[in-house]
Amino acid sequence: MTAATMSSEGPGLPAPSQVPASLARGRELTTPALRAAVDGLSPQMRLVSGYHLGWLAADGSAMPGSGGKAVRPALAVLSAEAAGAPGEVGVPGGVAVELVHNFSLLHDDLMDGDTERRHRATAWTAFSPSLAILAGDALLALAQQALLEVGNDRGLAAARRLGIATQDLITGQVDDLAFESRSHVGVDEVLAMEAGKTGALLACAASIGAELAGAPAALVDGLAAYGAHLGLAFQLVDDLLGIWGDPSVTGKPVLSDLRSRKKSVPVVVAVNAGGSAAQELARMLGDERPHDEDDLVRMAGLVEEAGGRAWTVTEARRQLDEALSRLRLLDMPDPVRDELGAVARFVTTRES
Amino acid sequence: MTAATMSSEGPGLPAPSQVPASLARGRELTTPALRAAVDGLSPQMRLVSGYHLGWLAADGSAMPGSGGKAVRPALAVLSAEAAGAPGEVGVPGGVAVELVHNFSLLHDDLMDGDTERRHRATAWTAFSPSLAILAGDALLALAQQALLEVGNDRGLAAARRLGIATQDLITGQVDDLAFESRSHVGVDEVLAMEAGKTGALLACAASIGAELAGAPAALVDGLAAYGAHLGLAFQLVDDLLGIWGDPSVTGKPVLSDLRSRKKSVPVVVAVNAGGSAAQELARMLGDERPHDEDDLVRMAGLVEEAGGRAWTVTEARRQLDEALSRLRLLDMPDPVRDELGAVARFVTTRES
Repeated sequence: MTAATMSSEGPGLPAPSQVPASLARGRELTTPALRAAVDGLSPQMRLVSGYHLGWLAADGSAMPGSGGKAVRPALAVLSAEAAGAPGEVGVPGGVAVELVHNFSLLHDDLMDGDTERRHRATAWTAFSPSLAILAGDALLALAQQALLEVGNDRGLAAARRLGIATQDLITGQVDDLAFESRSHVGVDEVLAMEAGKTGALLACAASIGAELAGAPAALVDGLAAYGAHLGLAFQLVDDLLGIWGDPSVTGKPVLSDLRSRKKSVPVVVAVNAGGSAAQELARMLGDERPHDEDDLVRMAGLVEEAGGRAWTVTEARRQLDEALSRLRLLDMPDPVRDELGAVARFVTTRES
Repeated sequence: MTAATMSSEGPGLPAPSQVPASLARGRELTTPALRAAVDGLSPQMRLVSGYHLGWLAADGSAMPGSGGKAVRPALAVLSAEAAGAPGEVGVPGGVAVELVHNFSLLHDDLMDGDTERRHRATAWTAFSPSLAILAGDALLALAQQALLEVGNDRGLAAARRLGIATQDLITGQVDDLAFESRSHVGVDEVLAMEAGKTGALLACAASIGAELAGAPAALVDGLAAYGAHLGLAFQLVDDLLGIWGDPSVTGKPVLSDLRSRKKSVPVVVAVNAGGSAAQELARMLGDERPHDEDDLVRMAGLVEEAGGRAWTVTEARRQLDEALSRLRLLDMPDPVRDELGAVARFVTTRES
């Protein structure tokens, strides 16, 4: 299947590349430590977190399957290997970043009113809003604890890096929510929001292993830049999937971002494009009445007509290229560079 | 005014002692660092946090006044002094503990549906539930950042201590919420919940300065034990104020804990006491219909009749005595011991 044929069916990016082996390897390396960390929580927090992470059913029984894509743990492991250290060195970083990621999902799902994630009821729906807030809190605190256990200056530097990324992530979510009630949002603003909301933590994931390995600042910072571009590409693809993704694959309701009137990049680009499609889209986004399925399909068509889809596809590719070009500039073992490249390509061609 | 005359007016404890000078000193030492930390947040998080902390009005204009009692910063400063270090050494600990405390207030007010705190609308009421969640998240992350900035092994040890206290605090809140929907809660259970919800962070505050000063484990752990007993005494007084406190002093609605059917210690003790008052109280707590003011006054009377008030007053005093006896066992400068004793006495005789 070519990119051209995919564009009328999938989210608008080329056919997906194979899932890189490093994702499975990263998950295998980090999952035991992640489970051990979560097992240290109190019973109720262990249940809600384990449910959210896909390990437990709501009644506490074990669930088969592996949870999410575990892109962040894979990056943390590869990041240590980029610095010439064993992948294991990156594991506390992978655990910590995955915990912060899941803290943010637990809280964001509640704030956004999302009732489904990964084909299941979200934690706040399955348990309660309060328990979802508390589980998010517990995972955020646990993330720092995972790094403090490293017990040396490198763990301290990694914990600092994670703290900064966490604040950027929170700022991104604040902006995302603020945009929902604003009538006009600029393309630069929404890109900056997504750099915070997704880019910051992926930058942290891609550099934290090298930080834990005691790598020189040039490599740590270069990996962070790779991760920041990768993160933006990741989020742009997420925005495409939020409108044109297949619900049976994404696990989210069809046209979910339009349903919630989220000002994602394709929408903001379209509204700012000028012309009749942009105007009609802006009018539909601005009216107070609930949208039915026909409205949502119509809006998706308007976003595409105004160029929001094509622009986002191009920008995701540009960010991927930037990420890859950063990789080429850095001094690291070639096989690691290849794996980091494969993760970047996978992330921008995924379907869920 | 004697204890006997107070008991029919105030929350049931002896006349308040004077506010110890160390509270003002602790606040003066830590406030600049606390403000600097919060100023480093993004504008929206700075506004919501600054509002919650009592520094800003909801429109962002400066507010006169000093915010809360700042018991935790004072303990952190005294804790460093107990180890023979200047109080300044405890400041990052005081900042971090105060940030965790305020993270928990921001989230708890939302979960508990409380609309007023310190005579003002709670942050989730003044802004939005989402912004209160995010501001809490930002303060929790910031707390760890404040300790990581210390940049040595002592800061690391302090950050670990804070991480454990944070998890205990979260577990306490989980249990508190769970108790609300349970028909029976034991006295031991509610005391364990309060030890987590309030005792853990006060134990951390009372020991974190000594940890930052590099004190021997015996002193750090002894101060933590003092803080744990003090924290339980503090919470027991809070429970008394939640029923019998003067709303014009506490800043909370009259009979607020009964209004929200909170299973605080006086209530749990009363329900478990047996006898007709206990039975009627249990029946009123269990019925589904909303309670009017007469019901709430009646319930407060039943808690008192069943002995819940007297038991809680006695237990608060016993915990205070335990805290003071721990102090006497520890090797520290006598003036510091006196100040720590004064803080403990103040905390158990406060009216708000």
